[in-house]
This record gives sequence, structure tokens and C-alpha cells, in this order.
Amino acid sequence: MNTDADETAIRAVLKTVGQGHHDKDATTIGEQFAPDAVVFDLAPPLAPRFDHQGLAAWLDTWDGPVAQEWRDLTVTTGGDLAFCHGLCKVTATTKSDGQRAEWWQRATVCLRRVDGGWKIVHEHTSVPFHMDGSFRAAIDLQP
Amino acid sequence: MNTDADETAIRAVLKTVGQGHHDKDATTIGEQFAPDAVVFDLAPPLAPRFDHQGLAAWLDTWDGPVAQEWRDLTVTTGGDLAFCHGLCKVTATTKSDGQRAEWWQRATVCLRRVDGGWKIVHEHTSVPFHMDGSFRAAIDLQP
Repeated sequence: MNTDADETAIRAVLKTVGQGHHDKDATTIGEQFAPDAVVFDLAPPLAPRFDHQGLAAWLDTWDGPVAQEWRDLTVTTGGDLAFCHGLCKVTATTKSDGQRAEWWQRATVCLRRVDGGWKIVHEHTSVPFHMDGSFRAAIDLQP
Repeated sequence: MNTDADETAIRAVLKTVGQGHHDKDATTIGEQFAPDAVVFDLAPPLAPRFDHQGLAAWLDTWDGPVAQEWRDLTVTTGGDLAFCHGLCKVTATTKSDGQRAEWWQRATVCLRRVDGGWKIVHEHTSVPFHMDGSFRAAIDLQP
């Protein structure tokens, strides 16, 4: 079902998103999204649209690069649709107190072929939460 | 890009999953998934496979039906792939203390056409968490 060329192109889109985080370049990240993309993000609200200003402000809370490292990234393509899922380790240093933060998140990315390229039309990023009565976000899990 | 027949069939799969929750029938729910489906669930671990026993045990923690109500469910189909995203309100009563629980979750469901039908190959369900330093799972949001 996969075609190699499509999978290569889609992995390049995700790599560009990762490089955009490294460079803290919200514009480059935003260019990978369709204008009407629906984003389910780590933070509320439940279902924002892609939010350039919000992303730029979030990137600016970190000192230096925001690093993304994928694991078990699976890309499924067929015709003009594709979806990807995997685990992504995010590592960065807070600007406020110089603390190194690191967590694993789950990511699902759905894309559509647009004008010969691929645009992200939906992204879902999350961590689970501990069902021990604490309702703590599980940012401490290892794959 | 959508074909009406495919979208109808996919919405029927999601309705069957919802009915399976209502009836607390893990077998019927599991039949909607491909055997190697990767599930990113509300609870840890990060990325389990579809877990029939775990689902059955979870369903058994509730007294009476577990109700699902979708909002803003979008189904995108093309060829032999499809992806859906939307918000889903879950309502149920705990068996332990008879408390009514209700929360909105985000859901992304990716499907593949298999033998003329549709199977869920990936499901991602989550709530965001409050980035106010508390890291509390945001089970209190309204769409």
C-alpha cells in the first residue's frame, strides 16, 4: 500500500517540523499544515486550529533548541491520504529556570496530498494520564 | 475525495464501537480493530496493542452503560485508507461508589479497507493537561 516516494516525502515533512522546533521557527512549522488543520495538542483547549502565535510563544519559553526524537514511527500511505503514528521524545531547557525537561509523547499525524506535496490536515499529540486517582499527566513514561 | 458509501461504512464501524461500549462488549469492540492495531489510550502505557482483557476489565468498573456521544466527527476517506477525528463525550457511573463520571476526550481513528470492510489500524484517545504547573489531566473541559 505504501509507495516509497510518498513515504519519503512524508518523512521529510515530519523532519521539517522537527527542524522547525529545533530552530524555534513557527513559520516553517506552520507551512507544513493545511490552513484548516485540526490540532489536538498537549495543552488545552480540546481542539484548536493550528495556532501560529501560540506555537511561537511556546517555543519562546525554551532556551536553545527544542529537540524531537522519533521512535516506532509508522507511515501508511494510499492514494492521496496518509497517516503516521509514533512516539516522540522532546528535550528542551526552560528559559525561566534553566531546567532540562524531557518527556515522551504519542503523536498521530494525518496528511493529504495537496498540489503534488503533502500537508498535515490533522495532528494529535498527547501523554496518557495515571488512573490511580491522581489524574496526573504521565510525562514520566519510557517506551 | 470522500465517497459516501465509504464514509457511511466507517461511521457504522464507530457506531458499533460505541454500541460495544454501551453494551460493555469488549469482543464486539475488538472485532472492529485489525489484529496489529496500535492504540494510544487515555491510560498508560504509552502505546499498547489493542488489549481485549484490559478493555473488558475497564468496562467492568462501570455500573450500567458507558455512553459515547460524538461531536465534530470528521471522516476523510481516499482509496483504501481513512482517518477520522472528533470529540467524544463519555458518560458512565462508577461501580465502586455510584458516582456519575463525564468527560470529553479527543479521538483520532485511522482505518484501512480489509477484505471489503474497514478495520481500525490505529486509535489515539486523549485529554490535554493543564500547563499551569499542576500537570493535571484536563478532564473538565467543554468543547
